[in-house]
Amino acid sequence: MSKQRKRYFLNEEEIPNQWYNIQADMVTKPLPPVHPATKKPLTPEDLYPLFAKECADQELNQTDAWIDIPEEVREKYKYYRSTPLVRAYALEKALGTPAHIYFKNESVSPMGSHKLNSAIPQAYYCMTEGVSNVTTETGAGQWGASLSYAGSMFGLNIAVYQVKISYEQKPYRRSIMQTFGAQVTPSPSMSTRAGKDILTNDPNNQGSLGTAISEAVELATTTPNCKYCLGSVLNHVSLHQTVIGLEAEKQMEMAGEYPDIVIACFGGGSNFGGLAFPFMRHRIKGENGKSHTRFIAAEPASCPKLTRGEFKYDFGDEAGYTPLLPMFTLGHNFKPANIHAGGLRYHGAGVIVSQLLKDGLMEAVDIEQLESFEAGCLFAKTEGIIPAPESCHAIAATIREALKCKETGEEKVILFNLSGHGLVDMAAYDQYLAGNLQNYHLDENTLKADIESLDNLQP
Amino acid sequence: MSKQRKRYFLNEEEIPNQWYNIQADMVTKPLPPVHPATKKPLTPEDLYPLFAKECADQELNQTDAWIDIPEEVREKYKYYRSTPLVRAYALEKALGTPAHIYFKNESVSPMGSHKLNSAIPQAYYCMTEGVSNVTTETGAGQWGASLSYAGSMFGLNIAVYQVKISYEQKPYRRSIMQTFGAQVTPSPSMSTRAGKDILTNDPNNQGSLGTAISEAVELATTTPNCKYCLGSVLNHVSLHQTVIGLEAEKQMEMAGEYPDIVIACFGGGSNFGGLAFPFMRHRIKGENGKSHTRFIAAEPASCPKLTRGEFKYDFGDEAGYTPLLPMFTLGHNFKPANIHAGGLRYHGAGVIVSQLLKDGLMEAVDIEQLESFEAGCLFAKTEGIIPAPESCHAIAATIREALKCKETGEEKVILFNLSGHGLVDMAAYDQYLAGNLQNYHLDENTLKADIESLDNLQP
Repeated sequence: MSKQRKRYFLNEEEIPNQWYNIQADMVTKPLPPVHPATKKPLTPEDLYPLFAKECADQELNQTDAWIDIPEEVREKYKYYRSTPLVRAYALEKALGTPAHIYFKNESVSPMGSHKLNSAIPQAYYCMTEGVSNVTTETGAGQWGASLSYAGSMFGLNIAVYQVKISYEQKPYRRSIMQTFGAQVTPSPSMSTRAGKDILTNDPNNQGSLGTAISEAVELATTTPNCKYCLGSVLNHVSLHQTVIGLEAEKQMEMAGEYPDIVIACFGGGSNFGGLAFPFMRHRIKGENGKSHTRFIAAEPASCPKLTRGEFKYDFGDEAGYTPLLPMFTLGHNFKPANIHAGGLRYHGAGVIVSQLLKDGLMEAVDIEQLESFEAGCLFAKTEGIIPAPESCHAIAATIREALKCKETGEEKVILFNLSGHGLVDMAAYDQYLAGNLQNYHLDENTLKADIESLDNLQP
Repeated sequence: MSKQRKRYFLNEEEIPNQWYNIQADMVTKPLPPVHPATKKPLTPEDLYPLFAKECADQELNQTDAWIDIPEEVREKYKYYRSTPLVRAYALEKALGTPAHIYFKNESVSPMGSHKLNSAIPQAYYCMTEGVSNVTTETGAGQWGASLSYAGSMFGLNIAVYQVKISYEQKPYRRSIMQTFGAQVTPSPSMSTRAGKDILTNDPNNQGSLGTAISEAVELATTTPNCKYCLGSVLNHVSLHQTVIGLEAEKQMEMAGEYPDIVIACFGGGSNFGGLAFPFMRHRIKGENGKSHTRFIAAEPASCPKLTRGEFKYDFGDEAGYTPLLPMFTLGHNFKPANIHAGGLRYHGAGVIVSQLLKDGLMEAVDIEQLESFEAGCLFAKTEGIIPAPESCHAIAATIREALKCKETGEEKVILFNLSGHGLVDMAAYDQYLAGNLQNYHLDENTLKADIESLDNLQP
């Protein structure tokens, strides 16, 4: 029996006081977002009507590698940070792998996922800029719950459009949002033009993140003193999430190791970037002993923008309200299958991550739904934490790499992000255990057509 | 804005390596459990057929104040312990109280509550004694989930009888148990004589903890190589839970304070005893500056064994399979109202706590359901954690004391146990927010009759 150290924490004074902005260090900078009509690059000023000013500035900041975390935000981080870095001894043993597996446990956040890391600063910036109303979208509800709590911290009114199928299938997350006083509307709804258009054509439409974003954006632009917040995809969201990787770096140092492989699941890219970017900076700079690390994004096989999408300009939402973003995408009309990893059901990848993938600084793998739940159940039985369906994808990719180490005998150090727990997703586990879950196969023709339809949007 | 320290953790080497057995220090020892037929005091040997030998020995141990935590158990504790001690600055501010409010956050356990602290050693002792099958009961499912996980750690088969109303109302906890491979049966069931008898008389019976205990005990005594585990009430369960208070004591020291008031919710007494007993030892011993502390158990007004029950010998279960225990009780036929704090719906109090209450070493308060949820919502909005309906009772009692301090201006230090989170209990919050929850009033005549019916059981 081992007496080795299992979990690593930082003292409160060691919680980072700056986020890391990888844009400043990237050799090839991300392409700019452009205006859909003029195709001209956007300035921060163009984003001010929609986002908090500070978030808009962060979004396009390609010069400052370090951005101060406001002291008030850091105080709120102290409610749940540092999150533990955990050595997964029991998982290693079950796999019989010589690999050292570590995970950063973001599931201990009171809302159950990493989303709070960006919800707090976004709500804070809105508050300091005198904004009183905030809109957002949410799929499974992790982001909506986090922003609802952050909004209640800073006295904001929060309106959330929740993808209808999740609103109905996951009522607990809706209740969590309502407990914090948020107004939650199933999307598509009749409260916006975007929603009305969809429901008119398709009264039984079950919603998508793209549609919910359209509705939230429309409400923000038609409501006085109102801004919009987004839970992933955008650069400033990944920036806030780097608190994960910066903590993990210090904690890995406490463990006396440095990761050979860094893995996270991938929806829009914020939990991936949050963990990966701080480590990637050493690779970009070619630092001794730290430039060999591989970075693997684990996406669902049924929504494979990184492995099967194309790098093109595309809208962030379904209705085409957002700027055009240069990203790996399946097309904003892509309709992802109803997998339970609701947070990964998004057609595109963030701008930074898309550029990094293009430049070969990271890799992507696709994971079938059944493999993801098989991995999640093994993790639960060994490490005791039932992972969110999203996080199961990171675990599956980790298991693949650990089993490779078993074959080769290599003692690699693998670090993955446990982005959230699955305690509010047990209906999905129920179905998996009952043998009622399936893998989904993409229709090649639809996939091709969705991507080709973007051609006339290109600048 | 404060920059004060918010959370306190212990290093892994500071996790206690002994539990504290308050029985050894009690001036008036608890009365012994007696055999229902002979009325003779039980010996540990009498308990061996039902419980792991080590648990039976601990149950009746009135001499050793400190009992070693097996190293294998301590290794498993490291998966989630130490749990944080948290200063509830935001709650203090919302109340405008000069009191310093701290809580021990047991909700960060991967199963969401303190129950794992005893599930791990109980499963471990069964494993070391060669037992392969274990039965138990569960109400809301916190205990069943914890024992299911602990069983999977040590390779045991776990069979759980879950109170039927919870089985149906809280399917997520059932799914959690099943994810760990446990067999879950709604109780009353046709699989036992106890269950059959009840269903024959009352086919729509919704179950109770007392009935589920009867079924689990019956299955254990009729199955080869099978033991029974209990999640509260018994002395050895409270013993295991003292890891909470022992950690909290060290953490309060880090914070430079000592509690004037210690508060926990009360079902059978294990989370209360777990937090309170380590502090209470200083009061028993009359130690300087530590003998004034008040200990408050917060029970539901609809199941008020401490505030309105009587100190009598009673069965631990509904069918009368268990030994007779000397405890504050409402009678084993008491039918608690369907409040959402399922873990508090039990007719009796543990033997140790009952003696301590009798001796004036602790107090009890009763909390109505609506007051508990009001307190829970305020806590969620301020501290960000949605508390379990059970824990809401402790929060309500804490708020009462904090508001008294506001009146008097006293800067008292209050410590309460956040025994679990409510993420799997959101249906209850839903109903509260919709105005569909109620308080329950006891029928005085039934209450009196249930207690009087115990007279012929007394030794």
